[in-house]
Amino acid sequence: MSASQVATLRWDGERLQLIDQRVLPMQTRYVACSSAGEVAAAIRDMVVRGAPAIGCAAAYGVALDARRLADTQTRGCTEALNETIEQLAASRPTAVNLAGALARMRMVLAASSGSDPAQVARRLLDEAHAIADEDVASNRRMGELGAALIPDGARVLTHCNAGALATAGHGTALGVIRSAVNAGKRVRVFADETRPFLQGARLTAWELQRDGIDVTLIADVAAGHLIARGEIDAVIVGADRIVANGDTANKIGTYPLAVLAHRHAIPFYVAAPVSTVDLTLPSGRHIPIEERDGEEVTGFGATRWAPAGIAVRNPVFDVTPAELISALITEHGVLAPVNERGIRRLLGG
Amino acid sequence: MSASQVATLRWDGERLQLIDQRVLPMQTRYVACSSAGEVAAAIRDMVVRGAPAIGCAAAYGVALDARRLADTQTRGCTEALNETIEQLAASRPTAVNLAGALARMRMVLAASSGSDPAQVARRLLDEAHAIADEDVASNRRMGELGAALIPDGARVLTHCNAGALATAGHGTALGVIRSAVNAGKRVRVFADETRPFLQGARLTAWELQRDGIDVTLIADVAAGHLIARGEIDAVIVGADRIVANGDTANKIGTYPLAVLAHRHAIPFYVAAPVSTVDLTLPSGRHIPIEERDGEEVTGFGATRWAPAGIAVRNPVFDVTPAELISALITEHGVLAPVNERGIRRLLGG
Repeated sequence: MSASQVATLRWDGERLQLIDQRVLPMQTRYVACSSAGEVAAAIRDMVVRGAPAIGCAAAYGVALDARRLADTQTRGCTEALNETIEQLAASRPTAVNLAGALARMRMVLAASSGSDPAQVARRLLDEAHAIADEDVASNRRMGELGAALIPDGARVLTHCNAGALATAGHGTALGVIRSAVNAGKRVRVFADETRPFLQGARLTAWELQRDGIDVTLIADVAAGHLIARGEIDAVIVGADRIVANGDTANKIGTYPLAVLAHRHAIPFYVAAPVSTVDLTLPSGRHIPIEERDGEEVTGFGATRWAPAGIAVRNPVFDVTPAELISALITEHGVLAPVNERGIRRLLGG
Repeated sequence: MSASQVATLRWDGERLQLIDQRVLPMQTRYVACSSAGEVAAAIRDMVVRGAPAIGCAAAYGVALDARRLADTQTRGCTEALNETIEQLAASRPTAVNLAGALARMRMVLAASSGSDPAQVARRLLDEAHAIADEDVASNRRMGELGAALIPDGARVLTHCNAGALATAGHGTALGVIRSAVNAGKRVRVFADETRPFLQGARLTAWELQRDGIDVTLIADVAAGHLIARGEIDAVIVGADRIVANGDTANKIGTYPLAVLAHRHAIPFYVAAPVSTVDLTLPSGRHIPIEERDGEEVTGFGATRWAPAGIAVRNPVFDVTPAELISALITEHGVLAPVNERGIRRLLGG
């Protein structure tokens, strides 16, 4: 991760340090996690968010509990750690990277059967580091491949935060933009504020501003107007789960952007590591869509603006059908058109 | 206006009382205006908003200055009042009802040429009362006509606030819903929160909750998901300006809803009085789109969440092309399909 970039998650030798994404950019503070339970709570409460970042955080959560158990027990750790993995897997339902990272931890655990607990703990920590390092490497590769799709002078709309803050570093959608800028292209980014959690207004705006990338904040509702007036050349977003036919779950509000991009014939790109792909589900309608507390919609932080007692629906992801995705940018290559055959080929590659 | 309904604007015998829509529902307070300048400031600052309501408020603004002038001058009032009208007309650029109401005031003023200032002032106040009363009557008629389009059990999505608070009473889009409910239909309303000014979360939610109408608040970004999942049966909104070919300017975020409704084959209705029609413009691309201060997007009220110094675009209206509007509900009748011939027929009727 380059020096200029923010450390979303950081292993301090003893604990996992997570930058608190609930309070950025008003405050820059870290939350230290000493156990899997604390990591699961941090994921649930959105201290850490973004599909790749929560995968990495969960892996460190397993490593943390393995170290704790190694300090207190000499045997019987495997069962306890499998329970830890179940607990972490339940912390958020939509992103598949979480399940993928935990599957890797489970495999390391199974392969370490018979080893002493301290050795198991070391192996699990090594695997967590590997997952984080591979995430950054994937994002850099994805950035290089995706940058070719971004013309010099492009005005690019993004939604939510698919940046360094959503990953172990560099970012997915914002990684593509970063790589295009690093390659000398002039890129102007429009960032949707992304209600209700305001990842765009708080995190994307902050992250790009910090990197000196030209960024303009808009309300989510303004995207249609700008697209219709010809002021946007491409849309690029991340993903929380891509299923076998290419249908993609991402932050709520992504699907309307894909529909608008299609209507106005501008490309709609998804940038995500292949770990985001879930071949066990045939199409988007099978993806579980998390609904969160209505308090996220009735205000922000301590500020309330909706009348007390109002009913709220708060789905936090939606599904974009593959046919609306112009290209899928992964570390294995750029897929266009997006369909089941292509996705299986990418995963084989 | 029924007793249960809120008084958006109220003539207290001396001043115009405006419910302060910047602080609802957290506070219910009125702002008293004693001059046209105060009314223009209230319109600019969004103490009063909603195309029909600002038309009515502006009419009272002219009446207020006419009374002030009558108290201090015995002649030369006409010129001063024409300047007052210009000043009020400039307060917000997109809604045409404002220009329409002021054109009526200008006609009364011209017809009163030679009368003594006190008599001119009385006539102008009578005209302001007439504009407000006609607005309520139009909304009730529109409600009756539009209610026929809302099936029993319908789940209806609305955007912004096209309710009693946007008019002199009853509302346009919410007037249709009110009339359907009053006719015994079960209607479930989904209200978009409507960033950045949060008219949906604050005003529509409050107004419908107060009337005992079933209302569920959602973030703007969630509309696409609910429509795609078949959880919305119709979309209904108000309008700020409808031009000759039927293209319609309304609150930013309306156009994406029309595109989504079209894609999922659910009706998209616009409810607006014929005073919203501007035949001088041939198509939507000629409508001036107001852009407001970026501060509306970087936070809400005293709460800030975007990083300091961030660039912002804040267009507050967008244009929905006529072909995406299933029907236009007016007090003169329901027009479907929406096209220039039909609009001219409505205005003639």
